[in-house]
Amino acid sequence: MRGFAMVDFGKAEWIEKERPKPGPYDAIVKPIAVAPCTSDIHTVFEAAFPREMCEFPRILGHEAVGEVVEVGSHVKDFKPGDRVVVPAITPDWRTLDVQRGYHQHSGGMLAGWKFSNPLKEGGKDGVFAEYFHVNDADMNLAHLPDEIKPEVAVMATDMMTTGFHGAELADIPLGGTVAVIGIGPVGLMAVAGARLLGAGRIIAVGSRPVCVEAAKYYGATDIVNRREHPDIAGRILELTGGEGVDSVIIAGGNVDVMKTAVKIVKPGGTVANINYFGSGDYLPIPRIEWGQGMAHKTIKGGLCPGGRLRMERLLDLIKYGRVDPSRLITHKFKGFDKIPEALYLMKDKPKDLIKPVVIIEE
Amino acid sequence: MRGFAMVDFGKAEWIEKERPKPGPYDAIVKPIAVAPCTSDIHTVFEAAFPREMCEFPRILGHEAVGEVVEVGSHVKDFKPGDRVVVPAITPDWRTLDVQRGYHQHSGGMLAGWKFSNPLKEGGKDGVFAEYFHVNDADMNLAHLPDEIKPEVAVMATDMMTTGFHGAELADIPLGGTVAVIGIGPVGLMAVAGARLLGAGRIIAVGSRPVCVEAAKYYGATDIVNRREHPDIAGRILELTGGEGVDSVIIAGGNVDVMKTAVKIVKPGGTVANINYFGSGDYLPIPRIEWGQGMAHKTIKGGLCPGGRLRMERLLDLIKYGRVDPSRLITHKFKGFDKIPEALYLMKDKPKDLIKPVVIIEE
Amino acid sequence: MRGFAMVDFGKAEWIEKERPKPGPYDAIVKPIAVAPCTSDIHTVFEAAFPREMCEFPRILGHEAVGEVVEVGSHVKDFKPGDRVVVPAITPDWRTLDVQRGYHQHSGGMLAGWKFSNPLKEGGKDGVFAEYFHVNDADMNLAHLPDEIKPEVAVMATDMMTTGFHGAELADIPLGGTVAVIGIGPVGLMAVAGARLLGAGRIIAVGSRPVCVEAAKYYGATDIVNRREHPDIAGRILELTGGEGVDSVIIAGGNVDVMKTAVKIVKPGGTVANINYFGSGDYLPIPRIEWGQGMAHKTIKGGLCPGGRLRMERLLDLIKYGRVDPSRLITHKFKGFDKIPEALYLMKDKPKDLIKPVVIIEE
Amino acid sequence: MRGFAMVDFGKAEWIEKERPKPGPYDAIVKPIAVAPCTSDIHTVFEAAFPREMCEFPRILGHEAVGEVVEVGSHVKDFKPGDRVVVPAITPDWRTLDVQRGYHQHSGGMLAGWKFSNPLKEGGKDGVFAEYFHVNDADMNLAHLPDEIKPEVAVMATDMMTTGFHGAELADIPLGGTVAVIGIGPVGLMAVAGARLLGAGRIIAVGSRPVCVEAAKYYGATDIVNRREHPDIAGRILELTGGEGVDSVIIAGGNVDVMKTAVKIVKPGGTVANINYFGSGDYLPIPRIEWGQGMAHKTIKGGLCPGGRLRMERLLDLIKYGRVDPSRLITHKFKGFDKIPEALYLMKDKPKDLIKPVVIIEE
Repeated sequence: MRGFAMVDFGKAEWIEKERPKPGPYDAIVKPIAVAPCTSDIHTVFEAAFPREMCEFPRILGHEAVGEVVEVGSHVKDFKPGDRVVVPAITPDWRTLDVQRGYHQHSGGMLAGWKFSNPLKEGGKDGVFAEYFHVNDADMNLAHLPDEIKPEVAVMATDMMTTGFHGAELADIPLGGTVAVIGIGPVGLMAVAGARLLGAGRIIAVGSRPVCVEAAKYYGATDIVNRREHPDIAGRILELTGGEGVDSVIIAGGNVDVMKTAVKIVKPGGTVANINYFGSGDYLPIPRIEWGQGMAHKTIKGGLCPGGRLRMERLLDLIKYGRVDPSRLITHKFKGFDKIPEALYLMKDKPKDLIKPVVIIEE
Repeated sequence: MRGFAMVDFGKAEWIEKERPKPGPYDAIVKPIAVAPCTSDIHTVFEAAFPREMCEFPRILGHEAVGEVVEVGSHVKDFKPGDRVVVPAITPDWRTLDVQRGYHQHSGGMLAGWKFSNPLKEGGKDGVFAEYFHVNDADMNLAHLPDEIKPEVAVMATDMMTTGFHGAELADIPLGGTVAVIGIGPVGLMAVAGARLLGAGRIIAVGSRPVCVEAAKYYGATDIVNRREHPDIAGRILELTGGEGVDSVIIAGGNVDVMKTAVKIVKPGGTVANINYFGSGDYLPIPRIEWGQGMAHKTIKGGLCPGGRLRMERLLDLIKYGRVDPSRLITHKFKGFDKIPEALYLMKDKPKDLIKPVVIIEE
Repeated sequence: MRGFAMVDFGKAEWIEKERPKPGPYDAIVKPIAVAPCTSDIHTVFEAAFPREMCEFPRILGHEAVGEVVEVGSHVKDFKPGDRVVVPAITPDWRTLDVQRGYHQHSGGMLAGWKFSNPLKEGGKDGVFAEYFHVNDADMNLAHLPDEIKPEVAVMATDMMTTGFHGAELADIPLGGTVAVIGIGPVGLMAVAGARLLGAGRIIAVGSRPVCVEAAKYYGATDIVNRREHPDIAGRILELTGGEGVDSVIIAGGNVDVMKTAVKIVKPGGTVANINYFGSGDYLPIPRIEWGQGMAHKTIKGGLCPGGRLRMERLLDLIKYGRVDPSRLITHKFKGFDKIPEALYLMKDKPKDLIKPVVIIEE
Repeated sequence: MRGFAMVDFGKAEWIEKERPKPGPYDAIVKPIAVAPCTSDIHTVFEAAFPREMCEFPRILGHEAVGEVVEVGSHVKDFKPGDRVVVPAITPDWRTLDVQRGYHQHSGGMLAGWKFSNPLKEGGKDGVFAEYFHVNDADMNLAHLPDEIKPEVAVMATDMMTTGFHGAELADIPLGGTVAVIGIGPVGLMAVAGARLLGAGRIIAVGSRPVCVEAAKYYGATDIVNRREHPDIAGRILELTGGEGVDSVIIAGGNVDVMKTAVKIVKPGGTVANINYFGSGDYLPIPRIEWGQGMAHKTIKGGLCPGGRLRMERLLDLIKYGRVDPSRLITHKFKGFDKIPEALYLMKDKPKDLIKPVVIIEE
């Protein structure tokens, strides 16, 4: 079968590989719609892991809706022909880490991330292939409701679950004020998530006009544009009469964003990170604004939840009209062969881009 | 000054009384808009307390927006002329109960409720008067934002804070399924609150057409009409494929509603009550459906939060367009003298009634 | 192999049965030490389920420490010869209920309970056999530390996890006051659990002298003896100056115990049940003391946690000297054949009994 | 009256000052027993605030048990002659911050700290005086139980409440493994707090023999001595088989301690800080060990709780034998005049010092 793969750090191309086989609890799925993600770009172009720990070629992609083509002997709830939503995070549910409460880290820190993960240990091929392998299908797949288009549902697999997780981590009081730093597709879903979880005022930090408009659509009440207000923290304190915000969601920026976040959050408030930090040795917590260690400004950060129940609940939010992620999709491609073109958009970031999808089959 | 008061159980009429005086931390407020509440009707016609513990006449009413006319010497943030929102619950913030975390019970169970409470000990005159007294103004009043009409803001004082509290108590998972039993004005705000706090599917139980329409407006996705489905529990289990719901909010019914609620909630789910039960000795938890005591079906119930910060946050939710409580208001009266007419609507419950308001001054 | 089984409701005897075989993830264990439980007696003599839903004979027993004799092909962390602690609750970890957060109800309400459960659907033979079957060994077994005797570790499998779960559910504030109703072995572990989780004063309700002494050993500061104070609630209110307690743990009594529990808990407090209620249609919540529905008196109740991580953590509590469950053991029997004698002690409850164990092999 | 005061940064001496007067809700207390604190030394010798924001002379000291000598007209629960425990943190309970849930920050970040705080705005004289002023006596004082000696109760005012708060913030699972970094008197109370809140294994990091012995007494199961193991993180990972710990409590060290803490905590675990960081611009979160932002390693830190209820609950823990803080007291002085001598011990830290007290009156 064909797949679009990283053949080495810095280099991605079409490859031929054998079609995967399911274990007794697994499924093989062929994609109906996929979306590239900024982290695919990170994977290829940032060399986040030592080369000797990685396996090449590694097929890219972790956002997909597909059709089941084969299932293992012990799979109960899915059969060939079923249309399914595949979460980016597909944990091994049989680990003590799950008993501890964090399936994202089942088998080790971040080990719930398998698709397109280049590590030999824990990683596997992604969804930019004619067929891909899903571990523990009954626990990791969700049925695609008839009411939802595949290209819309694909937004649930990573963008929604990640952005909403920011809101979940942020301990937003009902009617509280939230700042969302970064309004790419994940930040936009963080805005939507903050609204879904009861925020009153939502201050979004970003500057690209296409994103600013979408942020307002998803619930932002104030926009802080870095170009107009390079001192983001000062501007947010000004907007809030010096008080700051109840919760901050970090959805972009480099490690120094932590300085801004801690400055603007009230004592007793929470900073929630969902951003992947690809470089820098440390995230600096500013000592004075952290109350010399005693301000009760809580700092959290975590990988998005995956698994079947999470997908089912996110799909319900779409189905019942609580959120419409289709507003994220600015570029639609048709056909399997368009995957590279869609992917490189995430690298080049044209002015009008939020998120592309590739519709492989209608 | 004049006030509309309960002069004995079962009897309410206009009385003359001396205008209250503020203590050093208090304020005197004249009403701009008020709303009668079903609990005013309970207060007058249900004789919930032994007569000897009560004080007559007791001016009725606990939902008001008003104008400050006088403040005590130590009040810092309010002055005569300020337009203010007055929560139904105005705790004494200087009690150990507040340190324990429940201002609603400051000074004893339910003692945060003062306005129109007929008890000698803890009660005081309500807001259906030319002037009324607010204890600890800096902690219990909120400024009325210019963007919000007084008659809309008055919905925050009890309907919104109570209904939303149902949703807060209900531990709704993001995208989870919620049943709201009872869709009077409080139940409707429970529906709105469930949506605000991330519910996916919301099943509302009720039958009056005006309420059913409003429930859909506020986010109900399914309606269970008692007349069509007398077995409410059976119907909800049917709608959910036998699984039941993640959370139940009880906003109506008599003590037997507890049977229904426990039946329909999943193991690990929560039943949250915000209904006032005026009669019956016991609320029956069904043993089998409660897993013989071991199903992890949590049962909660509580008086709505009051105080200034709560009102400020609810007003932000209105101001930023997260919810529009004006859809509750089906009957508007103009002028102080219309208070009794509005009040008796709550007793007679005409077909088209959800909630009346009396606009005293524009 | 031999096993001591319920052959019908009301009748238990030795039977011969084929030795179980492991599936790929399972283990076969032979017991080293077992303990009978009051619920074995309930199982046999209370006919809690319709006969047609049950399977006879069903081998009894769900508290065991044993030695692994065989493992399935996919078991990684256990091998024949390993000495293991076997929790009473051995969930199927591959269910959506686990994703929802309650492994006790994996596969349905209470379905985490498998050993000696008489239901055809979900139940299986218990541990009073020469060999027994453990599903998903890597997730449900824990290694027995060398420092801990088997008969002591067997207390972790049900008594400790259940009693401590009462304390976990009870939301005990650090230094708060707790009432524990019932001081059989589970209630005693609830006392120990309350102390382990930060309780200050602990009021234990019970009357058997052997249990009263053990309650004091485990941390009870006050004893309320039903014989001296038939009005338990009145006595506890008296002891607390009319204030009541922060948390109540119900570890005994019939359905009416709910009346007492709700009366004595403060507004904002929690009632936590770990008792199995075998009869009665309803548990009655007293309306007035529940604040007419609005007192914020939360009611919880749940089956004990099982699985490997739970056992490992409880064993650490023993190993590091945080609690010594051996004080529960009043009767020790030696040899497999003594199981019935030990079991019937739980039925006859002699004066000096708290908990028996049967040491099968030293 | 006399008081021992900071007359300028770096200089402390006896001064004469007028005896304070109570407002209507306040009390004047004369000390029976006081204890100096490392933070008194910080206050004098570290110049943590700009000089122009400070007021000199400022009487030092914030740990005291005393006798009420005068109360304001509105004080209900205390009268002259009452022996009282005075928390280090005495919030203004009438602020929106309290409604938000953090009395420590009532009136602004850290503003619950008043005694000996050198700031003009928010600070006031401390307890090293013949008389001192307590704001809002009914909310901030606790009666000293007869069973507890004053010099023992004084440990509750700061050492216990701070150390235990570390354990409260640390989200310790029942039976979980905790590391406590720093075992001065606050760290020792963090060890005791971790045990009180259900920790299994407790790894304490420190080297002074007197503290190491006390740490074992309070519940430490493993000691990591910096001198033997300069790579603290490496040693703790080694002790835990590479897994790390569930919770970390930081009770000592400079800003770089954050690197160690994040390294040793498991994904899903919590780092809780109760240390005052007096210098350094930033606390560095190590990016890789923080999972590039996605490890669910939560970082918290906060000022100790104060107020009356907190003191009452801590006193109950002493009274009911849950903890004995007297083991902290290595040096006892008799007489008011010994205050400076006791204070300078905290600066000089002799080998055998944990905590001194000054008993002023027996």
